Amino acid sequence: MKKIALAIHGGAGTIRKSMITKELESKYREGLKNALEAGWKILQAGGTSLDAVEASVIVLEDNPLFNAGRGAVFTHDEKNELDACVMDGKTLQAGAVAFVRNVKNPIKLARLVMEKTEHILLAGVGANEFARQMEVEFETDEYFFTDFRYRQLLTAREEHKIQLDHSGVQSSKSNPKSLGTVGAVACDFLGNVAAATSTGGMTNKKFGRVGDTPIVGAGTYADDKTCAVSCTGHGEFFMQTVAAYDVACRMKYKNLSLSEAANETIEHLRESGGEGGLIAVDAVGNIALPFNSEGMYRAFITSDGAAIMEIYK
Amino acid sequence: MKKIALAIHGGAGTIRKSMITKELESKYREGLKNALEAGWKILQAGGTSLDAVEASVIVLEDNPLFNAGRGAVFTHDEKNELDACVMDGKTLQAGAVAFVRNVKNPIKLARLVMEKTEHILLAGVGANEFARQMEVEFETDEYFFTDFRYRQLLTAREEHKIQLDHSGVQSSKSNPKSLGTVGAVACDFLGNVAAATSTGGMTNKKFGRVGDTPIVGAGTYADDKTCAVSCTGHGEFFMQTVAAYDVACRMKYKNLSLSEAANETIEHLRESGGEGGLIAVDAVGNIALPFNSEGMYRAFITSDGAAIMEIYK
Repeated sequence: MKKIALAIHGGAGTIRKSMITKELESKYREGLKNALEAGWKILQAGGTSLDAVEASVIVLEDNPLFNAGRGAVFTHDEKNELDACVMDGKTLQAGAVAFVRNVKNPIKLARLVMEKTEHILLAGVGANEFARQMEVEFETDEYFFTDFRYRQLLTAREEHKIQLDHSGVQSSKSNPKSLGTVGAVACDFLGNVAAATSTGGMTNKKFGRVGDTPIVGAGTYADDKTCAVSCTGHGEFFMQTVAAYDVACRMKYKNLSLSEAANETIEHLRESGGEGGLIAVDAVGNIALPFNSEGMYRAFITSDGAAIMEIYK
Repeated sequence: MKKIALAIHGGAGTIRKSMITKELESKYREGLKNALEAGWKILQAGGTSLDAVEASVIVLEDNPLFNAGRGAVFTHDEKNELDACVMDGKTLQAGAVAFVRNVKNPIKLARLVMEKTEHILLAGVGANEFARQMEVEFETDEYFFTDFRYRQLLTAREEHKIQLDHSGVQSSKSNPKSLGTVGAVACDFLGNVAAATSTGGMTNKKFGRVGDTPIVGAGTYADDKTCAVSCTGHGEFFMQTVAAYDVACRMKYKNLSLSEAANETIEHLRESGGEGGLIAVDAVGNIALPFNSEGMYRAFITSDGAAIMEIYK
């Protein structure tokens, strides 16, 4: 029997133990655990890596603690704009959406783009129109309203700046919920890998800024021949360094192992001035979770052992 | 004195000699020549590769023959939506816009994103708002109206399908003007490379579809350590194969030459079912222009010799 594996993340950034209460920490751990279990159940039952990463990301999108789906940050105009991407390492098919609104689970919509269209990336009003035609579940603005995200926006607007959600600038013990993106990567019994990423982007973002999450090769990538990758952090640096595909290239062109390749990519990101991390899995169930920030909400499980949930370095 | 080099393209696809009148062919050649001269003048005067690629692309955007800027194809809703991306191989900075409207030169706007914001990609209404704040030149809908593009839309809508602009399906001797994207890559006297790409996308496109052009790593990439690349063809395949960055990776991780790397990328594209081509230049002035379609409007010039303009295989 082949080894199966699943890893998830809930964002990387300035996450210090001193900034998070014990109560909150256990809520994050519970959120990660629930997301991990949702995907793992599918893998264990012989399901596909694609179904597993989608299931894990849906649980994270539905959890208001994480910056994706329900817990998305606010744009400058007090809206929640959502990005997501999914890629199937078996077929190299991918689907993504950028700044859709009121869609309960952007990752489901990304999968519909992959399966129902000839396109990879749909954005804005047009992507919302596609969502309506597909009859996906919509939610009200109130559903996406979370008080601490709204306070993050007010603070950021006051400072006249676009704030990266994972920035620790406004963090304090009472408001430390600074997160980035959510994502999942998996390897199933057939040795097929898949990756999924979803985010609410940057607090106070303007001008239709698109980050790395919905970009194949930047924030998300999957190929059975190499690996599946989902990134989190300061998006522009992941776009500039084409981070997700860079891990795959270091494996296929330099013959590095998954963990060597993933570490080199994150080291190169650091040299470029970028902060963040990634989760990656290869087709034989190895997992890598490198990051260069102070913390990354992350969890993983393989056929070898129990689930591991970690937050700090 | 270091070798300088400039290459441009005006789209790849089903372009057969039998489909194009002599008169039209000479118009295309003249369009390519004018664009090449605009960039070459800058390189010869000791200007930067960044300025050169921008100048060449502006000339192509202003020419109604090519599917970018003025000659952009129509969306399903009879609009012209424009994508562009520029990347500086010296700094690895990049800027891009997706589906902006009425902006005369999207490539100038992409450069402003690079130079005036902390972002890489702005899209839709937000990107247009940024354009207004930057006071770039706008043009009326009439400026972007070209009769043969409009006829392409009517035909495509009738067939209820999204038509790739370079598709030869509707082409005939009387209406063969089927083009894709425009782009330029250059190497200057300092050995710095840059890439620029601009497009009107697909005829009859819907749902806010974003192609490879504005995606760093897919349609456009530049790094002095490897090469500058601009792609043209069926966008989704270039996104899936992360084509532009793939050329760079084959150079830096496999130690291939520019032309070996570019050829491998286009061969891999073909194996994946994708059609199109790319132009690439490295930091010592080598040029590669591989494509797997029937033709690609292309031109290049180096310190070594005269300008070359080609259309067919």
